[in-house]
Amino acid sequence: MAIHQTPPRPTYDIAGLIAALGDIPVITEPVIVRRRSRDFFWYSPILAEELKSVAADIIVKPRDEADVIQTAAACARLRIPLTARAGGTGNYGQAMPLAGGVLLDMTALDQVIWQKPGVVRVQAGMNLLSLDKATRAAGFELRMHPSTKRTATIGGFVAGGSGGIGSVAYGGLREPGNILAARIVTVEEEPRVLELRDDAAQKVNRAYGTTGIITELEMPLAPAWPWVDVIVAFDTFWEAFEAGRSIAMADGVVKKLVTPIAAPIPAYFGALKSACPEGKSILLCMIAEPFLDSFKAILSGRGMVTHEAPSEEGPGQVPLYEYSWNHTTLQWLKTDRSITYLQLLYPFDRLEESVRKMMDLFEGEVLPHLEFIRFAGNITCSALPIVRYTTPERLNQIIAQHEEHGVLVANPHVVSLEDGSRHKRADADQLGFKANVDPMGLLNPGKMKSFVPVR
Amino acid sequence: MAIHQTPPRPTYDIAGLIAALGDIPVITEPVIVRRRSRDFFWYSPILAEELKSVAADIIVKPRDEADVIQTAAACARLRIPLTARAGGTGNYGQAMPLAGGVLLDMTALDQVIWQKPGVVRVQAGMNLLSLDKATRAAGFELRMHPSTKRTATIGGFVAGGSGGIGSVAYGGLREPGNILAARIVTVEEEPRVLELRDDAAQKVNRAYGTTGIITELEMPLAPAWPWVDVIVAFDTFWEAFEAGRSIAMADGVVKKLVTPIAAPIPAYFGALKSACPEGKSILLCMIAEPFLDSFKAILSGRGMVTHEAPSEEGPGQVPLYEYSWNHTTLQWLKTDRSITYLQLLYPFDRLEESVRKMMDLFEGEVLPHLEFIRFAGNITCSALPIVRYTTPERLNQIIAQHEEHGVLVANPHVVSLEDGSRHKRADADQLGFKANVDPMGLLNPGKMKSFVPVR
Repeated sequence: MAIHQTPPRPTYDIAGLIAALGDIPVITEPVIVRRRSRDFFWYSPILAEELKSVAADIIVKPRDEADVIQTAAACARLRIPLTARAGGTGNYGQAMPLAGGVLLDMTALDQVIWQKPGVVRVQAGMNLLSLDKATRAAGFELRMHPSTKRTATIGGFVAGGSGGIGSVAYGGLREPGNILAARIVTVEEEPRVLELRDDAAQKVNRAYGTTGIITELEMPLAPAWPWVDVIVAFDTFWEAFEAGRSIAMADGVVKKLVTPIAAPIPAYFGALKSACPEGKSILLCMIAEPFLDSFKAILSGRGMVTHEAPSEEGPGQVPLYEYSWNHTTLQWLKTDRSITYLQLLYPFDRLEESVRKMMDLFEGEVLPHLEFIRFAGNITCSALPIVRYTTPERLNQIIAQHEEHGVLVANPHVVSLEDGSRHKRADADQLGFKANVDPMGLLNPGKMKSFVPVR
Repeated sequence: MAIHQTPPRPTYDIAGLIAALGDIPVITEPVIVRRRSRDFFWYSPILAEELKSVAADIIVKPRDEADVIQTAAACARLRIPLTARAGGTGNYGQAMPLAGGVLLDMTALDQVIWQKPGVVRVQAGMNLLSLDKATRAAGFELRMHPSTKRTATIGGFVAGGSGGIGSVAYGGLREPGNILAARIVTVEEEPRVLELRDDAAQKVNRAYGTTGIITELEMPLAPAWPWVDVIVAFDTFWEAFEAGRSIAMADGVVKKLVTPIAAPIPAYFGALKSACPEGKSILLCMIAEPFLDSFKAILSGRGMVTHEAPSEEGPGQVPLYEYSWNHTTLQWLKTDRSITYLQLLYPFDRLEESVRKMMDLFEGEVLPHLEFIRFAGNITCSALPIVRYTTPERLNQIIAQHEEHGVLVANPHVVSLEDGSRHKRADADQLGFKANVDPMGLLNPGKMKSFVPVR
């Protein structure tokens, strides 16, 4: 793996920018700017080294879409890079400004624009937990959210994420219907505002903000069930996996999370430790309360339920989902930075076989943590295994061996869309679209590295 | 296929029964009793002959559960068979009283007992359309319903059906979570009232009323979306099938019906004829309104949308779903009784291959009509093909050839649970349970034919 070369860092006319922004709030204090330029890139020992000096020159904090347009116009005129950012919860530098310039803090665009049963229109900078409160009053919630729900925003999720808690029922954000529309501002001297609906809205999904500045999103909603957090402990990981598979395949049981985690990972689950008996592998689930008995009937005695409580996510409470997806990794990293992780997608039609194979190949080195999801209509597993890290070479070897066995890897140890993607190239639609909305390549430079500015 | 032998028809002490029933309403007028003893068994030319003389001796119409208990006690004392019945919309004599006796008309037990978000508790005799109105006010509806929704009841659906409109999202009634609880009255001299929850509730599912008299059901609900009926026309059935498969596999698109139907079946679709161009095969879909654009994006130009309108099911309106499931067959039978049908389940892992194979084997004789469903966690097809009927022998040959190729057949040309089931035997749980709740075998005799009365 080639260490990413930060492009030579040009200087920009920041004074000219500030003048052009008028009364739009900015922050130039270097310590703050540097701190807010960071995300959770340090999950990767490779990126931790590579990105440690990355910082913007200035934070601009638009109050509304008009401010976004004014900032985009100024940046275009002055050729200053512009990286949109909100909660900063990404794990591989998605919103870190490699080329400096403006860090566009979107968190003041935090209002629901309208909602109707099953659909919400929201400003991109709205926090996911706040959004949940707003839609829950009408009996609805987002179909899916990342494990960072309490700190992340809807815009950040769509721009930097791919799915999460809820994907076991609805698949990922890439599935038709999972993003209904996006409104974006282009980066030109005279910025345009574009409404992208359905298929077109996918042009901003997981593009790290390189294909326009998202100001609004229209998202489908699901019924807001009373969720119950459940932990089931098993003697072996395989039993946890098989029980999880039965639950994931049960179309009558409404669920949001089905997560088998191998011992000894749960030993690092601080506050949950009493529910994680030593040496046991566990299955984390979120089940809609009316279907809890059906859930247990499916378990039919397999494993031992060690925790069962209504899902709570208010201040001072740690919801179960903060032990799932990439929070699983974080729980371990809190006390031990010697490990890292991978992001895998198992083939649905050889699921058991390939999970087994990887367990055998990397026993004790790659510790299984799976997430059952729907993917293109089938139940399969995404995975974020814990990797006992030694060297970049060994990490690459592990990645290569997964790929050889048909397990897809979205490499979280690289910063560009191309290097991180399964096919090692940018989405053709997104690449073509970027020429239209960011012709000078000012949006988050270095992330869509195959893009060549058109003027 | 052996023609079913109606058991020698004993006579019962009907006068004694009437005396025991007190003020519970009864009907003894033979023309009415005979008419209400019939269902849609005549879909099958074999059953049409076999069941034509079936009639009860008396109709008893309980007003509440206390009346049901009193009737069950009297029937047990007097050894009079008792067949529960409501809308009478079954297609193979499920509720036809082979041994005469009491026809228990459940339609006066038609109240919602309680509802909360996502769950309704309802009396068994409530009409499905009325139930829909009651739950829709709170934003919910049943997860699935038969094509006979406007005339059938919830108790009849659970006792005689298996799934339907909605099963493409939630699977069949047999899936854990799809029936939360059933309350039943046993048939004994001192009847008991039992609450069956989750797994246990499955003991009354598709048992044709042989395993207790269902008085209440607790059913899960889904969001009541504004549904849009859509018809898409294609040059070939295969194109309709493939488009349907893409829609069925799209986890982000909320749908309730995905039904490919081969030409020339749509030529028999009276009121829909203008949307069914001559010679074209069609795909019927019900899509939640917010996802209609995503639906069209998935079609991506395949086929021609010939109909698109909000789903309406009020008086004087014919909803699209009355052209799906076994209503498809009915549309043809309205003008031509020379055809009949089958009920198939295709294997999910050889779906395309086996659909193709059956198309080739029976071209022009078995006309494809598929219903995409979820089954045990996978998308596959149920099917109710139109069969150009010649002889019982040929029909059996067609059934046998389907089975040889791994296509499961639920034979709709027989009356017993055993003959109709894929495994040619009664569900072991249901058979054992019957000994407990109907020890004398008085409930719908002849339907669970392997049951031996225990006293």
